[in-house]
Order: sequence, then C-alpha cells, then structure tokens
Amino acid sequence: MEIKSPYLLFLGDVPDQLAAKTAMGIVDWRRDWCVGQLRLPGCGADTGLPDLSLDAARDAGAQTLVIGIVNAGGTFPDHWTNVIVDAMRKGFDIASGLHRPLQSIPAIAAAREETGSTVFNIRLSEGGFATGRGTKRIGRRLLTVGTDCSIGKKYAALALEKAMRARGLDAEFRATGQTGILISGRGVAIDAVIADFISGAAEWVSPANHPNHWDVVEGQGSLFHPSFAGVSLGLLHGTQPDAYVVCHEPTRTTMRNVDTPLPTIRQVMDLTETCGRLTNPDIRCVGIAINTAALSEQDAHRVLDETEKEHGLPTSDPVRFSVDAIIDKLIADFSQS
Amino acid sequence: MEIKSPYLLFLGDVPDQLAAKTAMGIVDWRRDWCVGQLRLPGCGADTGLPDLSLDAARDAGAQTLVIGIVNAGGTFPDHWTNVIVDAMRKGFDIASGLHRPLQSIPAIAAAREETGSTVFNIRLSEGGFATGRGTKRIGRRLLTVGTDCSIGKKYAALALEKAMRARGLDAEFRATGQTGILISGRGVAIDAVIADFISGAAEWVSPANHPNHWDVVEGQGSLFHPSFAGVSLGLLHGTQPDAYVVCHEPTRTTMRNVDTPLPTIRQVMDLTETCGRLTNPDIRCVGIAINTAALSEQDAHRVLDETEKEHGLPTSDPVRFSVDAIIDKLIADFSQS
Repeated sequence: MEIKSPYLLFLGDVPDQLAAKTAMGIVDWRRDWCVGQLRLPGCGADTGLPDLSLDAARDAGAQTLVIGIVNAGGTFPDHWTNVIVDAMRKGFDIASGLHRPLQSIPAIAAAREETGSTVFNIRLSEGGFATGRGTKRIGRRLLTVGTDCSIGKKYAALALEKAMRARGLDAEFRATGQTGILISGRGVAIDAVIADFISGAAEWVSPANHPNHWDVVEGQGSLFHPSFAGVSLGLLHGTQPDAYVVCHEPTRTTMRNVDTPLPTIRQVMDLTETCGRLTNPDIRCVGIAINTAALSEQDAHRVLDETEKEHGLPTSDPVRFSVDAIIDKLIADFSQS
Repeated sequence: MEIKSPYLLFLGDVPDQLAAKTAMGIVDWRRDWCVGQLRLPGCGADTGLPDLSLDAARDAGAQTLVIGIVNAGGTFPDHWTNVIVDAMRKGFDIASGLHRPLQSIPAIAAAREETGSTVFNIRLSEGGFATGRGTKRIGRRLLTVGTDCSIGKKYAALALEKAMRARGLDAEFRATGQTGILISGRGVAIDAVIADFISGAAEWVSPANHPNHWDVVEGQGSLFHPSFAGVSLGLLHGTQPDAYVVCHEPTRTTMRNVDTPLPTIRQVMDLTETCGRLTNPDIRCVGIAINTAALSEQDAHRVLDETEKEHGLPTSDPVRFSVDAIIDKLIADFSQS
C-alpha cells in the first residue's frame, strides 16, 4: 500500500478540531504533501490550508482525497458519499481511515468499478500477516511507548526521526496507525489486525535492515490501558526495540475513555523492560517525552527538569522543544555496540 | 451463536490424531453430545466413536456436522466440500473452526442458499464487540494462564468447572477458542477478533453475574509467547480474574513453534499479577496445573510434590488426578470475602 500524494484533505462537516485529528496530523508533519482542504457547510474544523474545490485541487496536482477525520462510530454520513463519488469521477484516489470499508457503500463501490480509482481503506489490512516469530532481526529499532493512548507517541516518533536524520543517522518512521500511514504513505493499522497477528504485523512493519539502520516505530495504546494493552504488548514484542522513549502527559489523572488511573513513568518503564526483554534482552530507555501542551512555558520547563532528575534520562517535549539530548544518549549508547 | 447438538464429527482424511485435536477435545469432554465420526478413506485419526454415514448419523439424531480438525494453513481441500454440501442437503447445520469462512467456497455458499442450513464459522466473530472498559463487574472469575500455548489451559478450566460444580459451586466454563466453543456450544474465538477489541470480547464472554457465580475462563497463549502475548494480556485484562491457575508442561524447553525458552511458573505468576492488578487489584493464584502426560505416574507425583512445595500452592494434573485441593483453596480464599 503506497498512497499517492499530493493530498486534498476532506473534513466534511465535523463539529470541531478534535474530529479532524487525522488531517491536523498530516498538516503538522507533511504540509508540503497537501494542496488544500475540502469542507462542507457547517464544518467546525480548520487545518489552515486553503479551501479548494475538487476541480481546483485537481488543477493544483492533488492525487488522493484523504478522509482526514475520525468518527467514534466509524459510520459514513450519506451526504459525504456524493463528494467521494464526485472526486472519483474527477480522477482522485480515495484514502480512508474509517472502520467501515468505503466500498461497502454501494454508490462508492459502483464508482470504483466505473472510474478505476483506488480506494485505500487504511484500517483494513489487505492480505494476511504471519504470526510473530520473536527471532532477532538485523537493524535497530526505537519504539515510543506511553502512559496512555493519544498522548503524543506518534509526534514523538516523528520528531525523533527528524532529529536523527538531521544528525546523519539512517532513520525511518514506521507507521502503526491511520494518521501515521497517511503521514508516511505506508504502514499498518496495528489495532485493526486480527488478534493472533499483532506481533507478526509489527515484525512486518519493522523488518530486517542494515545493521545501523533505525526504524522509529510509532507506539500504540499503553501496556496499562484496559482497552488496548494487548495491542501495545504485541507491538512491543514484534518491534523488539533496542531503545524506547516513554511518552507522558502530566496533567492527566485517568486514562483516556476509562476510569483507570494513569500509571507512573516508572511503572511503564518497568513493565516495558520486563515484557520487552522477551524479544530483546538489551532493551533500554533512552529518554522521556512529555506532552506539555497544557502547561505554560515556565511550568513545562519545571516538569521537564523534575522528570529528568527523577529518572536520570534526557527529557523533553518533542513538539515544543528540542530532542537533541535524547539523540545524544541514543548515539552514545549505541555507537560502540 | 448457539450450536445445536448432537454432533457428527467430520475428520476428513487428516493424517494423524494431532490434526483432529478439536474432535478429540469434544469427545473428551462432551462424548454424550456426539453420535459418531465421519472419516474419508486414508484418515489417520480416530476419536473412538462409531463411524457413521451422514444418513445413519441423521437417523441417530445428529443436528450439526462439526469440522473437528485443525489445519495449519486454514485451507479447505476441495474433496471435503462435497461431503459438506451433502450434509447440508440432508439437513445438517455445519460448524467450522477453520480460518476461512466456509461460505467463501462457492458450492457451500450455494448450498446454504438452497437448503437454509446454518453455517457457524466459529473463528469469525459476527457483529462487533465494544472496546474493553476495565470496570469491575459483579460475579467471580477464574482464568487459566500458561507458561506456553497448547499446554492444557482448556482442559484445566473444564476440569475445574466440573469439580466446582461437584462441590456445589455455581460454575460455568467460558470458551475463548474454537474447541472450547464446540464443547460448550458458545463463546468467542478471542484470537480471531480485531486487536482493538480483545479485552472487550473478554468482557463480553464473562459478563456481570450473581455475586457467587464463577465464570471459569479458558486461557489462551501465554504472556511470554512472542506470537500471542497480546491476546493473553487482553484476555487477562478483560476477564479481570479474582483467581487464576497456572498451567505448565514440565518437559518442554522452548515455546511452541518458536525458539523462545519457556518461562518459569514464578515468572508467569509475577507478570500475571503485575498486569492483572490493572483490572482486579485482588487477583490471586489458587493453584498450579501440571500436564504430566509425558511422565510416568511416579515421576508425575514427584514433579507435583516438588512444584507444590516450591510455590506453596495446591498442584495437580487436572486430567490425570483430582483438582480437589485447588477447589479447597478457592473455597477457603473466597468464602469470607
């Protein structure tokens, strides 16, 4: 699966920015892949990109209309269907991260037949994966793990990839969720594979490579999240990371969408290493990424300093500040091995 | 999904007993649900049930033809298809635990239309599950966990259910795999659900119940198996067991189908409790089940005694000997709480 850019981002008429999270992520990391956004009357989200019609976007070179929104129920409103069908008739491919395969909508299935457009259903794995083997692969891997879901693991991985490349390392972001796939053009939505194949899919997404190549793998969920920990554990085992970075949001008290209290960074480190040693006995933490979006700059620095002291590990907000100290540790830890 | 018994067990022409593991499990635990077996020329497996034709089985009351075999590739040989279609025309429902949905075979899809027979694809969950909540439910749950896959977790759960009922407890076996589903007539093949919904499916299979009701949940995989640990963790979180029993096979050195060494019983207990406390802070081990099939009776008793002494927990082979000591501890631990 390789999704063709440039993209036109479809926001429909979702009520707010949060519902356009996928589009926002693409714009944050791959603005140059996006020619504009397509919004319907009443849309409460805005990526800041120019509003373009299908024709204008097509003239600007757009190849794929990306359904850049998340909707809890995974449904697809009927009034969006007409836009998608129009886009296919105008030569666009379609990429969707919704749970429901777009071609389950008869009008879209018919348009696919008629136009030959490709419909990427990012959350559906085409073809099967093998079960995980647990065998050590050549090449190096870094995984971002978290004290919760939706805490900045993808952004941390992307920031680390960027900083590693800037330092001359051979680093590659590996997407494991829908937004990550749209940001990198490929990957696997690991939460959507059949349970038996989680670690196998993680092995597939971070395959054997040159000895000094780093895969920077986007983490998912948390080993402490009662809904998704199985995904996180299979991803950890399949990725067999040499290095990991813990991601944390200091103002949260309970985990996303459930009543379970947030674990500590230390708990996450302990369990990640206990479990991670199964497929990589040398797994080690190289840093801590704190999402300080809710804090003033002064408070952010205080939290980063305290966390760094408590754990003796380089700590930063990878979106707000530099991750160079984490890269320094990564290089120091792995240069001689 | 409620599969109608009595069953006729279809063994096809599989080469050996191991390939008929599903049928063997049904006969071991629900012989009275089975009228006979249907074998093709060259079949190397034998459940010990009478060989019956479709007509003879029908006359004996059979309602469902059960595909009682496992095949690594999950494929369905063409020469089996005719038998299935014949059975549907003679009024049988069909139950299959193969990966491939039977109605993906055109002749079987056509026969379903023609006859109105029900085809149960046990490994495919119909309808969706919710994501796990982690909220404490009323009622009690016991989960069997293991140092490896295929080590006796289902047999231990069934033996415990039987012994608990004999002692007057309100106990119910909860199937999480294909053979278990055929033994109990319902359940969920938890390794076949979408990764995001593992713990949600486990919550569904062991729902809220009377305060003194015990669900005895069939475990899957192992937290230490590099292929399937994600399934085991989601099952642990969703089941939120009050009590668990560790299952072990003392002659194995590496885990099934991979090169990973077997963990110790102590490692499994530690990790089960560390992770299990997320959804049940009071989780505790009530016993150890050792699969001594490969040992002489003398050696079996020696291993059981040593294990019991080492861990201070009642230890037995639930197939070969009594599990009464485990039930004693269960009753003692939970009578006053």
